[in-house]
Amino acid sequence: MNTFRVVDGGGVTSPKGFEAGSAMAGVKTADRYDLTIVYSPTPASAAGVFTTNIVKAAPVVVSMENLKHSGGIGRAVVFNSGCANACTGDQGREDAMEMVSAVADSIGCTVAEVLVASTGTIGAYLPMDRVSVGIAAATKAFSADGGHTAAQAIMTTDTVSKEIAIEIDVQGCVVTLGGMAKGSGMIHPDMATLLALISTDCAITPTLLQEALLEACDATFNMVTVDGDTSTNDSLFALANGQAGNPILQSAGDEGYIPFVEGLVYLCEQLARMIAKDGEGATKFFEVVVEGAKTRHDARLAAKSVAGSSLVKAALYGKDANWGRVLCAMGYSSADFDPGIVDLYFGDIQMMQQGSALLFDEEKALAYLDQAEIRITAQLHQGDGAAVAWGCDLSHDYVTINGSYRT
Amino acid sequence: MNTFRVVDGGGVTSPKGFEAGSAMAGVKTADRYDLTIVYSPTPASAAGVFTTNIVKAAPVVVSMENLKHSGGIGRAVVFNSGCANACTGDQGREDAMEMVSAVADSIGCTVAEVLVASTGTIGAYLPMDRVSVGIAAATKAFSADGGHTAAQAIMTTDTVSKEIAIEIDVQGCVVTLGGMAKGSGMIHPDMATLLALISTDCAITPTLLQEALLEACDATFNMVTVDGDTSTNDSLFALANGQAGNPILQSAGDEGYIPFVEGLVYLCEQLARMIAKDGEGATKFFEVVVEGAKTRHDARLAAKSVAGSSLVKAALYGKDANWGRVLCAMGYSSADFDPGIVDLYFGDIQMMQQGSALLFDEEKALAYLDQAEIRITAQLHQGDGAAVAWGCDLSHDYVTINGSYRT
Repeated sequence: MNTFRVVDGGGVTSPKGFEAGSAMAGVKTADRYDLTIVYSPTPASAAGVFTTNIVKAAPVVVSMENLKHSGGIGRAVVFNSGCANACTGDQGREDAMEMVSAVADSIGCTVAEVLVASTGTIGAYLPMDRVSVGIAAATKAFSADGGHTAAQAIMTTDTVSKEIAIEIDVQGCVVTLGGMAKGSGMIHPDMATLLALISTDCAITPTLLQEALLEACDATFNMVTVDGDTSTNDSLFALANGQAGNPILQSAGDEGYIPFVEGLVYLCEQLARMIAKDGEGATKFFEVVVEGAKTRHDARLAAKSVAGSSLVKAALYGKDANWGRVLCAMGYSSADFDPGIVDLYFGDIQMMQQGSALLFDEEKALAYLDQAEIRITAQLHQGDGAAVAWGCDLSHDYVTINGSYRT
Repeated sequence: MNTFRVVDGGGVTSPKGFEAGSAMAGVKTADRYDLTIVYSPTPASAAGVFTTNIVKAAPVVVSMENLKHSGGIGRAVVFNSGCANACTGDQGREDAMEMVSAVADSIGCTVAEVLVASTGTIGAYLPMDRVSVGIAAATKAFSADGGHTAAQAIMTTDTVSKEIAIEIDVQGCVVTLGGMAKGSGMIHPDMATLLALISTDCAITPTLLQEALLEACDATFNMVTVDGDTSTNDSLFALANGQAGNPILQSAGDEGYIPFVEGLVYLCEQLARMIAKDGEGATKFFEVVVEGAKTRHDARLAAKSVAGSSLVKAALYGKDANWGRVLCAMGYSSADFDPGIVDLYFGDIQMMQQGSALLFDEEKALAYLDQAEIRITAQLHQGDGAAVAWGCDLSHDYVTINGSYRT
């Protein structure tokens, strides 16, 4: 078992050779950071995972193309909040390409080595005059201490910025991984609505980095749901610049690959949990553990369905131990299981045994549900497939936030 | 085009030869009707459509078995509200069978000729002593005027009872169709969480009645969503006792079949709309029309996805013309379409043309969204597949209701 050392106050600029610069571009509102560029002066292996929504925002399309054209080499990712640049047709595409060009010009690299992501209202056009000024300002602000401000600049309805860094050991070298993420609404697999960037000084080929990123995303960001809406803008990027000096990881069989992936999964899981905890209007975070499924796929389906059920979420908000909704949500999840032999727990309190309701202590259940973090466990007794999903409760504030998002 | 005459104050006992009796059994609370039996003294053709959730409540399982054993002949349907008798194992099954037996004994028919449905909290056991007393009382109260009370007795969080009757012409005979339904939460295709019963004096074989019911359900109840949760108890029943005296409908080619199905679809659509309008906490009803899809299947997927999106629903509650969420929800629906050529309208106000945002009059949009009934139309320009789905907004009250459902 690998151990990770969490870097105090760490973020995307914690790994060697990463800088970030941010600006108050005034995309939607003044007086807040809303544009940021994370930059590796050294060319880095680059990878990306993007929304499965067929309506893909312009920056998603441009980033996917650039990753392909560069052969997986990246130098910078530029983010803006306040406008998603989605459903904006040819103009949106031109705007995303203009952002990429401006960054490439400033740092002196090819256009394909720059990736781009936007988050905010769908169907609004970017104010390109202000964005251009912002890009110029951000590139002048590049700093190895710029990670925290970068994490703030990508926030929309997020109430806290989400960042972390860890150190791991890869073949005797200290490798650092840093990450930042945003996302608190329109969050649903696959993948959760989020923008996230993982930076690392690990030496790893683009192909293997992409493979590791997909694996980590599948077990973490793809298991978070806030509201069942898969966004048009989801983008998870990774940049690995090799500054740690480890022997370059080239195949999944390499000695250092397993600790690297374990570290990456840990990092992504922490960010995914932060997203669920900061779900729009959330008062509670909850974890759904499904064990004993026929396959891992069945366990994933069941766990995600429970985490996404409006009725489960509303019950948790109201501290109501309405566990029947949990079984109901597994039942319509398409997971293959026999409801007649399921055991169900809220924390350590068993609600159902072999598919039948148990009498339980309502006082004890209420006390458990009064906590900020809840665990629901289902044991299906069908095999050894297991999965964990994360979600948050459905509160009055979610409705308030999403009833007036654009204003 | 067939014309339907809506029967003033009509319901399930409007067709000839139907009676209903209700009782205050005190399943969950006293002083309200919570048990009802709809009865045809003449044996009737019987049909049913049930939840696709693999967690099926005991009454669903028993009704499915009885329909099979009776060869599609039914005499009565017994309903209770206040307890769903779901996730209750062997005890639940025994209880559902005991309800059916008690009714069969009272009216003098075989057990298989009685169908049963329950709605309320999942995971609670029926108080069979009180239920038995209620069944005895309900059978003594049979009346041809009993339809209204029956519609009230099946309500849970419903704020209004849902019933309707129409008259149609089938081969020169006046045929009456009556219907009642309940459902306002845990509503999602397939099928919407609901209990519904269609009664008719039409003469039609059980096999053809089942075919007609499936077709009507597919176009109506399966296109309603309140919260995306497919219940364990959904049951739609039809009883057709032949008292209208029309030549018995035996095949889809029979002259009278088309008007019958048209009438049935109309009736089911009205009940489906009532359910969406009475969605838990709803302040608005909305209709999503998808036209120009490659296939009807694509249109259905897209329309249902929009109607079920928490973000679309919250935006409508807040009167926010955030149409980007509509395109986003179609995008993750699995419908096959090109987002780059979609036109989108809120009422008559066009929001998007050929996949790009249009400037629109926010004042006008706000005035439109201030109405109680909203229509969203998407023209996909890909073919002639079309579908309509119905939903309601997501309000603060939905959260309140579902945060304390069991208490």
